[in-house]
Amino acid sequence: MSDREQWCELVRKHVHDWNTPATAKIWSPALEALPREQLRRIQDEKVAGAYTYLWNRSTFYRQKFEQAGLGPDSVRSVEDLPRVPVTLRDEWLVDQQKNPPWGTFSPLRQEDWLERGWMMFSTSGTTAAHPRSFRHTNFDREMWAWHGSRALHAMGVRRGDIAINCFSYGTSVAFWGLHYALNHMGIPVISGGGANTERRILFIETYKPTVLLCTPSYALYLGRQMQEQGKSPKDSSIRLLVCAGEPGACVPATKQRIEELWGARINDDFGCTEVAMSPFGYTCEYQVNREDGRVDTHFMEDAYVPEVLDPETFKPVPDGQRGVLVVSNLFSEAQPILRYVMGDWVSLTREACPCGRTHARAIGGLAGRYDQLIKIRGLAFLPALLEDSIRSQQEIGDEFKLEITHVNDMDEILLTTELHPGASMDDLEAQEQRLSRKLKGSLGIVVDVKLVPPGTLPRTEFKAKRLFDLRDRRQ
Amino acid sequence: MSDREQWCELVRKHVHDWNTPATAKIWSPALEALPREQLRRIQDEKVAGAYTYLWNRSTFYRQKFEQAGLGPDSVRSVEDLPRVPVTLRDEWLVDQQKNPPWGTFSPLRQEDWLERGWMMFSTSGTTAAHPRSFRHTNFDREMWAWHGSRALHAMGVRRGDIAINCFSYGTSVAFWGLHYALNHMGIPVISGGGANTERRILFIETYKPTVLLCTPSYALYLGRQMQEQGKSPKDSSIRLLVCAGEPGACVPATKQRIEELWGARINDDFGCTEVAMSPFGYTCEYQVNREDGRVDTHFMEDAYVPEVLDPETFKPVPDGQRGVLVVSNLFSEAQPILRYVMGDWVSLTREACPCGRTHARAIGGLAGRYDQLIKIRGLAFLPALLEDSIRSQQEIGDEFKLEITHVNDMDEILLTTELHPGASMDDLEAQEQRLSRKLKGSLGIVVDVKLVPPGTLPRTEFKAKRLFDLRDRRQ
Repeated sequence: MSDREQWCELVRKHVHDWNTPATAKIWSPALEALPREQLRRIQDEKVAGAYTYLWNRSTFYRQKFEQAGLGPDSVRSVEDLPRVPVTLRDEWLVDQQKNPPWGTFSPLRQEDWLERGWMMFSTSGTTAAHPRSFRHTNFDREMWAWHGSRALHAMGVRRGDIAINCFSYGTSVAFWGLHYALNHMGIPVISGGGANTERRILFIETYKPTVLLCTPSYALYLGRQMQEQGKSPKDSSIRLLVCAGEPGACVPATKQRIEELWGARINDDFGCTEVAMSPFGYTCEYQVNREDGRVDTHFMEDAYVPEVLDPETFKPVPDGQRGVLVVSNLFSEAQPILRYVMGDWVSLTREACPCGRTHARAIGGLAGRYDQLIKIRGLAFLPALLEDSIRSQQEIGDEFKLEITHVNDMDEILLTTELHPGASMDDLEAQEQRLSRKLKGSLGIVVDVKLVPPGTLPRTEFKAKRLFDLRDRRQ
Repeated sequence: MSDREQWCELVRKHVHDWNTPATAKIWSPALEALPREQLRRIQDEKVAGAYTYLWNRSTFYRQKFEQAGLGPDSVRSVEDLPRVPVTLRDEWLVDQQKNPPWGTFSPLRQEDWLERGWMMFSTSGTTAAHPRSFRHTNFDREMWAWHGSRALHAMGVRRGDIAINCFSYGTSVAFWGLHYALNHMGIPVISGGGANTERRILFIETYKPTVLLCTPSYALYLGRQMQEQGKSPKDSSIRLLVCAGEPGACVPATKQRIEELWGARINDDFGCTEVAMSPFGYTCEYQVNREDGRVDTHFMEDAYVPEVLDPETFKPVPDGQRGVLVVSNLFSEAQPILRYVMGDWVSLTREACPCGRTHARAIGGLAGRYDQLIKIRGLAFLPALLEDSIRSQQEIGDEFKLEITHVNDMDEILLTTELHPGASMDDLEAQEQRLSRKLKGSLGIVVDVKLVPPGTLPRTEFKAKRLFDLRDRRQ
């Protein structure tokens, strides 16, 4: 048996309840409701296996390991993980640029892909000039489908549901993962990917899907379009939303808007193309609500090892304290990875959730990456925090843009936002000033506000761009 | 075992070589290279099974059978098939309108779909007002994938190929079928569905796919766009084209243009949403060329029974004579169907092909449906024939539109067509007159010609609409 086959065998060994969920609440209680020391033993075995596989087959990682003074047997457990240097996204970027088109970090060889290939995926943030793309195999497909099934089951998706997937099927990992997971679960899919909004509304009315998959931005847009046609999203067949691509389900005010619009629970599906291709994070049916309206995100620890580190020193921070997320992937043939800096700000809890799962949770979810932190007048903000403050204002609509400029040595912030469809257009100036005062109260900085009529700002069907930091260009 | 399970078991019983091709030339020689009497025995058994399954579970077909005086055991073999009345597309349309949203023709019950669902598909010709959609199950998914693999293998797709799929992943059967077939074969897929042409060109250059899946219209467009960027499709990594959605691969002049443009063989993948969801017809690697440049299309007779009938009487016409195609589907859980009028004009041969396959072939392919026949000045034309005559003219470009009007009791035909990118724009009038004369020669009717510069006419990425019969509106 080759080292590759050994690795795949090891991954398969720790699969339980392949085809159908073991209980109504938890797909694989033998994994998800495991006491921590047993979970740790699984992780240890898989960490050791992944390390060996990477040592043997990944030029990039072999070099990284050797430079850190590690030998072929240096990492045998989760305890040894901190000896492995973290990997930053830019390192992969450079690796792919130096060794086009795939780079050398993946242990998958081109001939393996050609032998057992599934698909090519790209990061959604990729510009046309430099696509960053990744190969995956049919083994990965099966594993993604099963892990995705576990997450969707946790969110409350059940036999008898019908899903409508409103993503454009391109090279995005998240939605291929969910598509195959739905296939695995036997949940029928209506692929709204190639359809326009009008046709998607028609599909919802005619075929009565119960689960809607899309970005949070699109969930708002689609619901409002239905309202404009005199239809009620709340009275539609949709009972659950599975959202990905943006942190909307973790932004309390956005979450609340979407849930009120649809009369349905919004669930978060969280991953990343580089290391967490099938859902690494997901909100469970139980949804522990924090006081601030945030919901915990579950991690799938038998598949991924999460660590929370200080962003300066990359030393661990204790559970309950905030740091950046670093993740190891323990189930992929093409992309098993040790200690990739996903970089989202999180604080962990390892208390069991009332849903019965024992794996770690991100307290209040994941709200954005540490390298997306934006400094305005010396204060640091995550885009999701700005979004939450803005969307908390009842009088304003769903769309906004935030422009930050630097004028006369001062940061200036201009929020252009739509009025709520029902709101009065009278005395806009007074409304703008009132909103500006309220934002000063919640954010602590002065924000100039410009209100525009509903429907003025552009809509997006995939990831929305709402924050425009125009300072670099002027300096 | 329920009658449904019995039917699925029977279908599974006649599967050979599930995972991998048995030979370099033929995926399942135990089916595809079978002597006719053995093939007939398989068909007989499956026809009897499909009849029973429909009798028990399809309200629409049960009524149809009873009205024809048939009993539960009346159809036990291919020989009995002519006793079953044919089904026209309009009958299903009415059935779905009367019994929304699915109609009663499918033996699949909604609870079966919810239990083992895969996807919903729609016809591409569907207008937004009345979608005609169909449910399929995970059993169907597996069968489609395997039948599709057999067809792609026949076209010459092999391990080691990489496919780029340039269809918008919506609710189209053909391309979901091909996508899952590629998965089944272990051929990696680059999903260009959600990407624009620029990005697809970048994908081709960067990741070097060898098989291009798209409509014939898009194959022309994509290649020309590459040329406009100073790139050569002929020198690209693409070595095979798999085209569907339009009869381009069966239109000699279109076929030739595409093959010259790409320096690659174009293969036809032929099916229809109602009865032939996975490829019913496909061109083999060997490609028997008829004198007129046409290529035979293979049928998959263990999965489908083709009949060629007189379009007026629906009586059989002998092999070698032209009639309309009527098809029975013998492998689907959701849509096994007896005697559906697909309606394409074909003439059959049952001689073995030099590729070794013994199943029936459509001589020179399928060039269009009998209800698309268009009468101009008393003569009947298939749109594909008009296309062939137009594209045979070397001086003209890839795009054209044909408008037929009725003025002063006479049909008038105006062909607006692009000049070839390299052609001179001088003395257009003389060029137009010359082209008009040539078309009179090949079509036998007068066609007014208007030449426009390259790039003037709209491009399409899916099925092209080039024929505009404006006569009804004026009468």
